[in-house]
Amino acid sequence: MNTSTANISVTKVTNSRLAEVDFDNLTFGSTFTDHMFVCDFKDGAWHNPAIVPYGPLTISPAAKVFHYGQAVFEGMKAYKDDNGEVFLFRPEQNFERINKSSKRMAIPEFPRDIFFEALHKLLDLDKGWVQSGVGNSLYIRPFAMATQVGVSASPSDEYKFIILLSPVKAYYTGDVRVTIAQKYSRSADGGVGAAKAAGNYGAQFYPTNLAREKGFQQVVWTDSNEHKYLEEAGTMNVFFRINDTLITAPTSDRILDGITRKSVISLAERAGIDVDVRRLAVSELVDAANNGSLKEIFGSGTAAVISPVSAFGYNDKVYDLQKQDDSYATKFKQQLMDIQYNRSEDPFGWRYPIAND
Amino acid sequence: MNTSTANISVTKVTNSRLAEVDFDNLTFGSTFTDHMFVCDFKDGAWHNPAIVPYGPLTISPAAKVFHYGQAVFEGMKAYKDDNGEVFLFRPEQNFERINKSSKRMAIPEFPRDIFFEALHKLLDLDKGWVQSGVGNSLYIRPFAMATQVGVSASPSDEYKFIILLSPVKAYYTGDVRVTIAQKYSRSADGGVGAAKAAGNYGAQFYPTNLAREKGFQQVVWTDSNEHKYLEEAGTMNVFFRINDTLITAPTSDRILDGITRKSVISLAERAGIDVDVRRLAVSELVDAANNGSLKEIFGSGTAAVISPVSAFGYNDKVYDLQKQDDSYATKFKQQLMDIQYNRSEDPFGWRYPIAND
Ligand SMILES: Cc1ncc(COP(=O)(O)O)c(C=O)c1O
Ligand SMILES: Cc1ncc(COP(=O)(O)O)c(C=O)c1O
Repeated sequence: MNTSTANISVTKVTNSRLAEVDFDNLTFGSTFTDHMFVCDFKDGAWHNPAIVPYGPLTISPAAKVFHYGQAVFEGMKAYKDDNGEVFLFRPEQNFERINKSSKRMAIPEFPRDIFFEALHKLLDLDKGWVQSGVGNSLYIRPFAMATQVGVSASPSDEYKFIILLSPVKAYYTGDVRVTIAQKYSRSADGGVGAAKAAGNYGAQFYPTNLAREKGFQQVVWTDSNEHKYLEEAGTMNVFFRINDTLITAPTSDRILDGITRKSVISLAERAGIDVDVRRLAVSELVDAANNGSLKEIFGSGTAAVISPVSAFGYNDKVYDLQKQDDSYATKFKQQLMDIQYNRSEDPFGWRYPIAND
Repeated sequence: MNTSTANISVTKVTNSRLAEVDFDNLTFGSTFTDHMFVCDFKDGAWHNPAIVPYGPLTISPAAKVFHYGQAVFEGMKAYKDDNGEVFLFRPEQNFERINKSSKRMAIPEFPRDIFFEALHKLLDLDKGWVQSGVGNSLYIRPFAMATQVGVSASPSDEYKFIILLSPVKAYYTGDVRVTIAQKYSRSADGGVGAAKAAGNYGAQFYPTNLAREKGFQQVVWTDSNEHKYLEEAGTMNVFFRINDTLITAPTSDRILDGITRKSVISLAERAGIDVDVRRLAVSELVDAANNGSLKEIFGSGTAAVISPVSAFGYNDKVYDLQKQDDSYATKFKQQLMDIQYNRSEDPFGWRYPIAND
């Protein structure tokens, strides 16, 4: 995969901003590296793939992305090991997913060769921005958006595909308290919930703010029909450990097919843990919390890897979870990070070497 | 309402583009007037309301609108009568609705005085772009979007509120064939369907493309749970005339509360027509088509005013509708346009004078 026929032009910055960055005090996703990748879709094809200095776009206020939310994105990370080698984690999955998201949003698919060559070239240029040390990483944000001018609700003829790089530390600090959705919804059957479509996220901000006011950081969404079954959180899939069985919702057209989720399932199966991919009713969860069989809840996602949930709220009650000595969350987080940071074997072939110092 | 305390700075174009415009050949929403209104939200307040020459924005590729679809909009029109006087139609409703949409999308509400003064000043400057003659109008697109830099899924701290003006002719040409949704959905209970949120529209493009391939211009959406009840179309509410009763879905958190819809209801009630605001099952519609009691279907919306539907598709069958001599669609369209273009009395007080030559 290191060979490519894509022809990406490169314009380097004259002065790197790297020396100015305080890597100990990063706000997630708000610092960007020296370079970004940009490619334009016009007249039916992707043109002019280019790496350029990170900087503002000049874009019409009538660009369709502002009016119709025709935009999709991905989230992936680069990790540096102690020898200065940089790795991605299952990037093929992100590539396939952004094209799946694009299809649902009527955005033209992006070519594989340009995607991977762009990542290689970008990360080679900006590898100094990937800090070694577990927890440090470079968050990678590929996205596509509609740039055609026009305030009429129809698909754009023009798009931009961009990749930004942002050095980050761990996403969440501490445990997460979640509330279970009883009124608002994230997605509908037949909707775009399975796509990483921009509008799915903005739509969650208001109900998430309401949850925050009550002391919960995240909402665990339920099916929009009856609010009866547990689905996923805002940017994480969710796992429930009842006794020693790990339960997670099946993917559907409402739920994002998370790469961390499928990796956790593989790790659990390898460890001989029972994995039950099925709809879990909220009532079952409450019963399990009440009778003591609920051992753990955790979220899985690229940003936070694994986020242990310390309590969930439902029907104005709060259910606290006890720390487990043999925590699955801790174990999977460790195993995933060991693979990501090249500290262990890579039995599934998830590591993807991309650059080195 | 002509007085305002808002302090809007004005920068005029040096050369108007008005003389270059071919008003007989306009593509809906792709030509813009000389000026636009821009206002920024920062540090908890809206600042620097300004009218400036229409032109591109300089915006970070990491602005949250691109990634999380945190954006809302409105659609309204200015009409010019034969004496050169310019009117809006129920603009107070659009103002209230954009703030309702903003609330659902965690966007700060916009102040009434600045909104109305911006419209007055803009339309006064660009009134030459409003062509008289029934069917001609100036489409007005207020919108708000998240501009804070940051690729983390949380509400923006910074926003832009912009108003664009676009001269247009009638939106649809000819009758509309619609298909009834059986697989895809527009919105969920507890979702953002009742908001004019950007992402609602991009999400419809793919299923609408599929409908187009089968010869239908629009999709009539149904409830996402069972696809059993008729809801609304992509940018129109929908009315069904069965015998002489006019039926339309009740508004809900899935359906946009259309201003044309509520105006049609008022006109129908004034005319002594039975209006039944209730859920209409698809099966009822098919029965009515089969037994001849289905007389008309039409859409209502600012862009097209009233769009008569000539056929609907369901379960791979196409049901054609006969033209009615006493068409409600024709009557309401005429009455609405007479009010909009100041050609009739204005019994409901819907006309809002805003500028004159
Ligand atoms: C809605 C949603 N669910 C789950 C996830 C987790 O997916 P992944 O593990 O691929 O990062 C994400 C994204 O990160 C997401 O946006
Ligand atoms: C989804 C949707 N339904 C209905 C309408 C009609 O609303 P109005 O009559 O206020 O234009 C619109 C917008 O124009 C819309 O976007």
